[in-house]
Amino acid sequence: MTKPLNIGMIGYGFMGRAHSNAYAKVNHFFDLPMRPVLKAACGRDQAKVRAFADRWSYESVETDWRKLVERPDIDCVDICVPNNLHKEIALACAANKKMVLCEKPLAMNGAEGREMVEAVEKAGVANMVWYNYRRVPAVTLAKQLIDEGKLGRIFHYRAKFLQDWTINPELPQGGTALWRLDVAAAGSGVSGDLLAHCIDTALWLNGDLVSVTALTETFVKERKHNLTGKVEKVGIDDACIFFGRFANGSLANFESTRYARGHKALYTFEINGEHASIFWDLHDLHRLQYFDHRDGGLTRGWRSVHVTDGEHPYMANWWVPGLQIGYEHSFVHQVADFIKGVASGNLAQPTFRDAQRTGLVLDAVLASAKTGQPVDVVRD
Amino acid sequence: MTKPLNIGMIGYGFMGRAHSNAYAKVNHFFDLPMRPVLKAACGRDQAKVRAFADRWSYESVETDWRKLVERPDIDCVDICVPNNLHKEIALACAANKKMVLCEKPLAMNGAEGREMVEAVEKAGVANMVWYNYRRVPAVTLAKQLIDEGKLGRIFHYRAKFLQDWTINPELPQGGTALWRLDVAAAGSGVSGDLLAHCIDTALWLNGDLVSVTALTETFVKERKHNLTGKVEKVGIDDACIFFGRFANGSLANFESTRYARGHKALYTFEINGEHASIFWDLHDLHRLQYFDHRDGGLTRGWRSVHVTDGEHPYMANWWVPGLQIGYEHSFVHQVADFIKGVASGNLAQPTFRDAQRTGLVLDAVLASAKTGQPVDVVRD
Amino acid sequence: MTKPLNIGMIGYGFMGRAHSNAYAKVNHFFDLPMRPVLKAACGRDQAKVRAFADRWSYESVETDWRKLVERPDIDCVDICVPNNLHKEIALACAANKKMVLCEKPLAMNGAEGREMVEAVEKAGVANMVWYNYRRVPAVTLAKQLIDEGKLGRIFHYRAKFLQDWTINPELPQGGTALWRLDVAAAGSGVSGDLLAHCIDTALWLNGDLVSVTALTETFVKERKHNLTGKVEKVGIDDACIFFGRFANGSLANFESTRYARGHKALYTFEINGEHASIFWDLHDLHRLQYFDHRDGGLTRGWRSVHVTDGEHPYMANWWVPGLQIGYEHSFVHQVADFIKGVASGNLAQPTFRDAQRTGLVLDAVLASAKTGQPVDVVRD
Amino acid sequence: MTKPLNIGMIGYGFMGRAHSNAYAKVNHFFDLPMRPVLKAACGRDQAKVRAFADRWSYESVETDWRKLVERPDIDCVDICVPNNLHKEIALACAANKKMVLCEKPLAMNGAEGREMVEAVEKAGVANMVWYNYRRVPAVTLAKQLIDEGKLGRIFHYRAKFLQDWTINPELPQGGTALWRLDVAAAGSGVSGDLLAHCIDTALWLNGDLVSVTALTETFVKERKHNLTGKVEKVGIDDACIFFGRFANGSLANFESTRYARGHKALYTFEINGEHASIFWDLHDLHRLQYFDHRDGGLTRGWRSVHVTDGEHPYMANWWVPGLQIGYEHSFVHQVADFIKGVASGNLAQPTFRDAQRTGLVLDAVLASAKTGQPVDVVRD
Repeated sequence: MTKPLNIGMIGYGFMGRAHSNAYAKVNHFFDLPMRPVLKAACGRDQAKVRAFADRWSYESVETDWRKLVERPDIDCVDICVPNNLHKEIALACAANKKMVLCEKPLAMNGAEGREMVEAVEKAGVANMVWYNYRRVPAVTLAKQLIDEGKLGRIFHYRAKFLQDWTINPELPQGGTALWRLDVAAAGSGVSGDLLAHCIDTALWLNGDLVSVTALTETFVKERKHNLTGKVEKVGIDDACIFFGRFANGSLANFESTRYARGHKALYTFEINGEHASIFWDLHDLHRLQYFDHRDGGLTRGWRSVHVTDGEHPYMANWWVPGLQIGYEHSFVHQVADFIKGVASGNLAQPTFRDAQRTGLVLDAVLASAKTGQPVDVVRD
Repeated sequence: MTKPLNIGMIGYGFMGRAHSNAYAKVNHFFDLPMRPVLKAACGRDQAKVRAFADRWSYESVETDWRKLVERPDIDCVDICVPNNLHKEIALACAANKKMVLCEKPLAMNGAEGREMVEAVEKAGVANMVWYNYRRVPAVTLAKQLIDEGKLGRIFHYRAKFLQDWTINPELPQGGTALWRLDVAAAGSGVSGDLLAHCIDTALWLNGDLVSVTALTETFVKERKHNLTGKVEKVGIDDACIFFGRFANGSLANFESTRYARGHKALYTFEINGEHASIFWDLHDLHRLQYFDHRDGGLTRGWRSVHVTDGEHPYMANWWVPGLQIGYEHSFVHQVADFIKGVASGNLAQPTFRDAQRTGLVLDAVLASAKTGQPVDVVRD
Repeated sequence: MTKPLNIGMIGYGFMGRAHSNAYAKVNHFFDLPMRPVLKAACGRDQAKVRAFADRWSYESVETDWRKLVERPDIDCVDICVPNNLHKEIALACAANKKMVLCEKPLAMNGAEGREMVEAVEKAGVANMVWYNYRRVPAVTLAKQLIDEGKLGRIFHYRAKFLQDWTINPELPQGGTALWRLDVAAAGSGVSGDLLAHCIDTALWLNGDLVSVTALTETFVKERKHNLTGKVEKVGIDDACIFFGRFANGSLANFESTRYARGHKALYTFEINGEHASIFWDLHDLHRLQYFDHRDGGLTRGWRSVHVTDGEHPYMANWWVPGLQIGYEHSFVHQVADFIKGVASGNLAQPTFRDAQRTGLVLDAVLASAKTGQPVDVVRD
Repeated sequence: MTKPLNIGMIGYGFMGRAHSNAYAKVNHFFDLPMRPVLKAACGRDQAKVRAFADRWSYESVETDWRKLVERPDIDCVDICVPNNLHKEIALACAANKKMVLCEKPLAMNGAEGREMVEAVEKAGVANMVWYNYRRVPAVTLAKQLIDEGKLGRIFHYRAKFLQDWTINPELPQGGTALWRLDVAAAGSGVSGDLLAHCIDTALWLNGDLVSVTALTETFVKERKHNLTGKVEKVGIDDACIFFGRFANGSLANFESTRYARGHKALYTFEINGEHASIFWDLHDLHRLQYFDHRDGGLTRGWRSVHVTDGEHPYMANWWVPGLQIGYEHSFVHQVADFIKGVASGNLAQPTFRDAQRTGLVLDAVLASAKTGQPVDVVRD
């Protein structure tokens, strides 16, 4: 009954696994008109991609992504490779009329992103970027509450993404495992890797950012490079702080770093509205903190909402109240929504165009960090 | 304008300090018709009681409590000595028509307590027992919410008081500092010291306990005795667990111990009602956790109420929202309420009669622990 | 390379889904010598079992469990039906030399359990009971810490399993969805359903329980029965509290209820040892609270351990530090361990024999609740 | 034995109460060579200052602060009036050779502060500013840990002070109760009121701030003025965000607002060091969160330290472990330290000179907010 959606996966790293798991699980839990079929996995290392394909039951392997993109039996290409390869592959997908799913950030910068948006829109192919945190049920619930007007006028939006895994100066940069530390492959450091998530969520929940002022720092100036074997200058930002203004008049305060000892992946956001406030924390992703000033004064307090009830977003598809789901489920939800979007013609967000907005904020952030001046965010 | 209330303090230990502080502060923060005047402090050790009196500005000292009780310039005697002395002093206070404030537990057992209740009631003197936790604002707020019917039918009442300060077997028993470990002075161990607090709060919030079944344990069987210098059998209970039934049909589960590593003074209670639940924790005494099922489903959750607003019990007399008060303030509140009760003729709770109810539950708990059988709580 | 392990699933309810998901996922994340193959699903309702089989890709369906048990192409039978059917099916599995996985509790009571243990042991078939919480990484970590002796002598073990889903007296009992409220199908109420989990974990972490004293209550005395359509007496326990003694001298305090407003599935346990304490809570299952008295005094405090690092149990197989897994993963781990046990001949715990220990504690608890007397736990 | 320290209090508002309480209590809990004597209270409203003096047992009242400052029986003047009066009074104190205690912020701006520092230093009088949060035991403990080198190289310092009490646009500005909303009396809004606390703590814990970039916002542009009765422009900042660099190379991210719904007085700071991190929150001021990477990997986690043990700063003077103190105690500690400083000749921090450093950061913050440019902090 369900139509096949033939997937070609490019890359077999962390995100390759996360997406493959989503494809494998989604029809067990969601009633959908299509079923992902794992047609082919692609990677430059034949043995490794073979092992990956075996583990996840991909039907075939490719070692040249161009071949995969041209295969007539592939409907949809999933780009899970370093950022510097996104554009070229996406353009090829558009040229071959493939649907295209791209890991975040969309591109190395806004200029690349613009080309990608144009290509997929001109080709008329379905497209989406894996800003998966939108589909953590607690985050989706936040969106619902905001859309219902529960918060009233918004005054503040605060987001942080704190990690601590690069404090050790002996950690090298570059190569398969550590391309995120290599500016040539990643384009930027915590901005594109971590802040991009914070910005995507913020634009979705709170609308456009108008202007930003930023500060970046590279704490460890040189690291051995895995590809050259030499100690080389570190080109990425280790930490990035920015503030600014949203179009709705609220203030932004964003920060990310990989030097916050004690935090593994502490993505938090807080929104303060006239009537109510919301706080979320990736470390306990199944909870939403909600404060409503309209609650009776004597018992007013932050509510710790365990987002595991059937009426909570996506949760009727899983277990029973009190039993939490995890990180990987956000990808399952995103695949489910992507399929619904393809079937209905109303594409699931964030599309390339949606994700490009984040890219343009990142451009402004990095530009401001260079000069110390406020920079207006470009609108495509 | 304010009349003096002449206080005679017997004892100068931890509770002597806590009460003296309350007497010294209460009129700074509460508008009251009377003002405690620290007339005399009493203790067997002349030098120590002198130092205590100097520190707290007591006008005089006594070394014989009988003398203090008979002094015509004393209106009100405060008993802050080990439990085995409560009865005799209280009876003397009644005989001398002194108001009497007594540290908890009221007595060594129900039989002693009965005599004390009769004595003060026959003498017609104001009387009160220092179950101070009733007047932590968050606990008083719990009482208000229950009295307003917010919880509906009650199903469960759960209380614990966990400490860890006696795990070391080298700790001796007895003497001034450690009389709580000496059964001759204390009457019992954690039951009278810690569970007594839990029971007092429970009877106040949830009504009478009808029957109980208990288990006690003494983990360290022998300790050096400070008075004899010899290793002696430990007569107190180190831990006590009981369950039972309240008159309103709800179930009780109570536990206290001094062997719960990591807990300094973790007094917690939780009440589960048909519509709402309440949780409180002495370690964060300025917060009340409140869950109301009638909250909208999507944002239903435990509310963490920071009990520091002006409309919260007692809090208009202190600082501003967000600024917490501490342990000592519960005693200030109790003095304020005692004075209001004396002035109005409507005595503040818990009176000796109220506290006797806790004593009778303790009797039943200790009786059950001996036989393993359920024991009905006697009603005086 | 991996050998097939042909699974026959009996039941297609909540647990049928949870186990099917585990079978489908396990080889994606764990390197194992066998691979579950979903051969057949069995249920009395042909249409429903068909739909279930389609969703999970079971190769065939049966409507008579006896047929399934006799099928030569089935290696391993998974019993996911109400408790009153466990014994008969398990005995048939043994008779047919099938491996058998059984949902918890093992049986309606100790007598049934004894038969089942004897049958599978005599038949020499691999067997396991789905006490899945042992394999939540934080719980497994607790086991490691205890086995390393970090806690020292144990004084207290405290466990609760609190829910609130049956407070509404209009909720009926019995039938497919609500068999847990029907004593004929479930055998008992919260004891077998919830306390069984607490007891299994406790026996694993803290050794045998020697004696118990219990109290049970049925708050709603009558409910409409889904099978008869009539209002009938409720035979299950709505709440159960017990205390007792472990063989190692520590004290037990256990409670479960479905009338604790605000708690969806609050399974918590705490262990207090001489040197350290541990606390865990199912509502935040990826965290372990750990207190170590040997930490330096100034910074000693309860550590909130986010159990998501590669060195934590099972976690190297999932994502990266900070990214949590959920409830369903405990079943994946259990399948992985079961397969390793089958391959090595060293069966994964808990076997039927292990689970029977929990059944015997439940027998003692329910016996004590009837008489109010302490009851010794039988040792098979 | 203890010498009198004759206090003249100017102002009788919130801070007048907080300081009076500290003077009244300090010798009950601390052994000190001097004892504050409440000689005189001063305020323009005779009836109100009389009532205040009666409540706190000040021996006399004045309605003209110049008179009080000139009284030969006053040793030490305490300035608890709006910011625009600090300078003039402080200069008069210096001229009269009075010790002077001043509420924070020291002055309306750095220029005023400079005059004040020069005056008291030239006069050689003891001086101190009431940045009381330094003496919350958990904050003092943070200082100890940093000074011991526990954190190693510092990467990040993050502070927030969030309130929500001015969201209502009907709230007027100005007058006795609301002078903090009137720029003429307060000098600035949240910067001087709230951020000043954050900056003082930061300079103490983490050293100098070198440069800052700031953003301010006034959400409610006009409010009725209590003094004129007319709707007038609001001149204060309702919210202020800044980032910057410390001299030690770490990055600053600071924010304060009175428009963060749900936060009464949420002053938090977090310091991320190479080896360890610290977090503190005024809403639970008796706790310090501490993470030490050197803890064993399996049980590494944020430690919640209940700062109530005898070995914790100041705590041996209060109650017993587990029993918390509150907001007011920070002032008691500050008085105790002030007296020790006067007696020893080694003045307690922060002196006017220390507090001026905070004033200079505020100047830079407000200057940057006007232009959007980074501004270097002036060093006096």
